[in-house]
Parts: sequence; structure tokens; C-alpha cells
Amino acid sequence: VTEFELIYKLINTQTVERSDVLTGIGDDCAVLAVPDGYSLAVSMDTLVSGVHFPDSASAFSVGYKSLAVNLSDLASTGAMPAWISLSLTMPVADENWIREFVSGIFQLASQYNVQLIGGDTCSGPLSISIQAHGFVKKPLLRSGARPDDLIYVSGHLGDSALGLRAYKAEENIAEGCLKRFNQPEPRIELGLWLTQVATSCIDISDGLVSDLGHICEKSCCGADIQMASIPLSDEFKAYFNQQPDYITAITFGDDYELCFTVNEQHSAAIDAYSNQSGLRLSCIGKIRSSGSVCFLDHDNKIITINNKGFEHFK
Amino acid sequence: VTEFELIYKLINTQTVERSDVLTGIGDDCAVLAVPDGYSLAVSMDTLVSGVHFPDSASAFSVGYKSLAVNLSDLASTGAMPAWISLSLTMPVADENWIREFVSGIFQLASQYNVQLIGGDTCSGPLSISIQAHGFVKKPLLRSGARPDDLIYVSGHLGDSALGLRAYKAEENIAEGCLKRFNQPEPRIELGLWLTQVATSCIDISDGLVSDLGHICEKSCCGADIQMASIPLSDEFKAYFNQQPDYITAITFGDDYELCFTVNEQHSAAIDAYSNQSGLRLSCIGKIRSSGSVCFLDHDNKIITINNKGFEHFK
Repeated sequence: VTEFELIYKLINTQTVERSDVLTGIGDDCAVLAVPDGYSLAVSMDTLVSGVHFPDSASAFSVGYKSLAVNLSDLASTGAMPAWISLSLTMPVADENWIREFVSGIFQLASQYNVQLIGGDTCSGPLSISIQAHGFVKKPLLRSGARPDDLIYVSGHLGDSALGLRAYKAEENIAEGCLKRFNQPEPRIELGLWLTQVATSCIDISDGLVSDLGHICEKSCCGADIQMASIPLSDEFKAYFNQQPDYITAITFGDDYELCFTVNEQHSAAIDAYSNQSGLRLSCIGKIRSSGSVCFLDHDNKIITINNKGFEHFK
Repeated sequence: VTEFELIYKLINTQTVERSDVLTGIGDDCAVLAVPDGYSLAVSMDTLVSGVHFPDSASAFSVGYKSLAVNLSDLASTGAMPAWISLSLTMPVADENWIREFVSGIFQLASQYNVQLIGGDTCSGPLSISIQAHGFVKKPLLRSGARPDDLIYVSGHLGDSALGLRAYKAEENIAEGCLKRFNQPEPRIELGLWLTQVATSCIDISDGLVSDLGHICEKSCCGADIQMASIPLSDEFKAYFNQQPDYITAITFGDDYELCFTVNEQHSAAIDAYSNQSGLRLSCIGKIRSSGSVCFLDHDNKIITINNKGFEHFK
């Protein structure tokens, strides 16, 4: 058994079998059937060791997160996940590492009935590219926000930033934050529901400042955000005692929560969905017809923000 | 302009605009329409600097080849290319390099009306992942070969192996071989035509020994190949004078020619297609009901082959 065959064997252990996969792993191409009446939504993200995750991250969480960030893109488009391709590049094939890595991917994949349909394995510095495919009838785009729309975010912002500190400074960070960094939860169900009510949507990967900026740019509008409305977890607040670091919460990113806009007539429906699902949905501000993304303090004064969030090659 | 915006700008210079791309670059997902009656064929390949191409390869040829190897997978499935996603990881964003790289991709993409619909850019050691999407009605698989089918290969084998030698040993290799290594031609038109006649098909990326082995394994059969029938280019033969290195030609790979099987009733149609298209198609042997892939000399004696072709992590 060569190391190549070993990887192939481990990758073939997935139990999800979808009837729309006409030819899966083991041929030159996968051959797939998109259901009638649906468009195909695709997203591709690459994670590089030492850039997107610490070199010391567990293989399980590297696998889990590699899939989670891709499913998060499907969530923000309101798509139902279906298939993934995986390209794994690593210096030497380590059986235990790959076994854990694959089980991290497959755990999350099973949750959404996602089938691995192909990919590639290479020798080289550790990095993972995943392409996720999903189905969508009425996609959520960045470009649909309208003046006076309310702006919401799901969950809490900033926990992932604290989670990374646990790696970097070896600080005693609450387990919840570490888990939010290692295994972010793609908001698939929320995205599917939002196709009925939202005018625009994006996932918060690069930080709220940057990602809401994308919505405003594509929708040709501005936004006023009440800084005090930014949802923070109890763990985040406890870590900072009385003075939570809002700037970190809105600029670090890696949260994979959804930021979306809705006409205010839907605010009651949003509250009802939040109550029923148990997922916190916070109204943080309003779309303006022009201007940029402004964060306001208690006195409605604009807070200056220098750190614009995660950018590659900075 | 940040380096990130620079890459985005260069990648956005593509002129191909397909009507089935409902949302292209610039949102969380691309949203795409697969035509009625067709299945989706997808393939993902990663190229790592120093593994799949020499560190000294030109940016243009790295871009061209990254796309070519993916289109070759679509060709061997008999699919019509449509869209690609690109993930580019590089240590520092070098504007000139990226400009050349992108123009290599776009030159080949334009030839087949392929649109770049999304992707990712990361900081890290140079590597490129491309996912190619195409449409197919009746896919060519590895598993359809039947006993007594004739085995064909397109073009010539071994030129790419010589092309690499030009890099490695700085030998004086003919231009044609270097070009075949740097810019292999995906056999898209041949693949589309073969959906009407072939029983199985694969592209020769890992070497004929290995790739024909995949057909035999998936089709539960063996194969007898006449070594003297392996098609070699004049350049290849000239390099080796009187004793061409057949073992290199059948084991090195990186040729991206198609190896396919057909019922012998179609041999005249194959010849006619070859004449009309100007693409050499050589009958190299026959499928057997059992056994392995055997290469035979002039006296029908089996030639022992030790080098099984390209394997990752070897």
C-alpha cells in the first residue's frame, strides 16, 4: 500500500451516498445531477497552515474548519449543501493525521448530507482547498440591500478572535471561544430561511467592518451601526471585564456568522425565527442611502476604526 | 490599492461572459445554471511549485498548464467545459507574475469559452488549485471497457518527459517537447466526439502503464499492448537516435493525451476522425478478459516494467 493509496482509502470511508452523484470518487471527473428548477451555487476556499490555522491546530479541527468555511459561503447564499471536492497538500502522508482530518470533515459533512465527490492529493506544504456545491432557487446576494433596511447579525462576534489568542499567547481562554475558532458552525438553516425575507446577506469571515462594507459597496448604500448593539458572548465580556474590546469583535472576523438586511416589516418574523431556533439574531443598525459604514457610540458620535479586518498578503 | 485588490483586479480582466453564469466573481458563491438534460462534470487538480512544475517555469505556462490539466479531465469524460474556480496561493503578490499567470489561464479559457467564476487568493508557498466544471449527456467512464475492445491513444507519448529534461539537465531539447510540457493541449473536441463511440476513456497524466491500469481495474479486464505501436514524435525519436526510450514514454505521464477503448466495428470511424481532425490516433492493443496490462515486444514476449508512473508522496 503506497501512501497515495492510503489517503485514497481513508477518503473513501465516507458513508454519505447521495442519489444525485452519478459517478463519485474514482474517475477523471465526478458526474452530478442538479435538480430541476435549481441553480448551482459554488464556493472555493483554501486554508494554509500558519496563515488560516495555527501549525499546532488538531487535524480534526483543521478538517472540520476547512469544510465549515465553505459551507458558510453556501449559507450566506441561501443554498442547500450537496457535494464537495477536496484538494489536500501535505509534506508527508501521516496516516493518523489524515484519519483525524478526514473524520473532522466527515462529521460536519454528515450533518448536512454532503458527499465528497473527488479531489486531489499532493506533496507540498500543508494546505487544504475545498470546493462546495449547493442548490439554490432564489440566491441571497450582497447587492440587494435597500435604504432603511434593518441590519442583523447572527450569534456573537469576537469569540473566534479570543479563541486564536488561546493558541498564540497560551492564555486561559474559555472553551467556548476555542471551539468557535476551531469548529465554527455554518448557518445553513438560517441561510435557507433567509431566502424568503432578506434583501442581502454575507458571512462574516473578514470582520463585520469589511464584510458589511462589501454589502454597502455592492448595494450602493451606506450603513449606521450602533456599536452597543454588537452581540458579544458572556465569555467574551467576562474576558474583558467591564470594557469589552468591540474593535476586535468587529474587525477580526473568522466568526462565520451571517450579516443580513431585511425590510423592517420582517422584524417580527426575525424575532420569531430566533426564538424558535434558539439562534440569537441581533438588529445592529440600518442601511442608509449613501455614505460608508459608520459605527456610532451611545451619543451617536462616529467611532474611528483603523483596523479594517483580515486581508491576505497584508 | 492593496495587493489583494490587485489580484482581484487582474483576475477580473477576463473577457469571456457566459449567459449561464447568473452571479460570477464578487459574491460569497457563484450562482450557475446547468442546461436542461445535461449532467455536471467536475474535476479538481492542484499544482505545487517544485512538484508539478519547475520553480523556474514561466508564470504564463504555469497558468496555462494549471487549466490544461483540469480541462483534460473534462475531455476524458467527454464533457463540454463551462466554468472554473481558481485558488492561488503565493508567498508575495508579484504583479508581473500574476499578470502573466492570469494571461496563461485566460488564453486557454478563451479558446473553450470557459469563464472564471470565483476562487480564493492566499499567502503561502506557491500552489494553484483549479476546479473545472463542464456539461455532459453521456459521460465516458473508466469502467466501460469490454474484452476484445481496441485500445487507442491520441497524439504522442513521452514528449513531456523530454520537455522536463530541458529544465532539469538544461539539455538542448526540441522546442516542441518543451511546449508539450509547458502547454499541453486538452483533447476536448476528441472527448466530445468519443462519447458516441468509446466504451471507456482516461487522460494520460500519470503514464500509460498506470492510467490504462485504472481502466483495466475499473472494467475488470486486462490489456495486451504492442510496445512498437506506442506513438512517438519525430522529436522524441531523434533525441534517442535508434533506440527510443519506450519505458519513459509509457511511464512518465504528463502527456494529457486520451487513452480510450472502442469496439472494433468503430475502427474505420476512428481513422476517419483522425484524418479529418489531423490528430493522430493510434491503435496500440486490445482489451483481454482477464490479466493485467502487458506490454509485448516484436516476438509477443512480455516486457517487464518496473517504473509504474507518477505517484504522489513517493
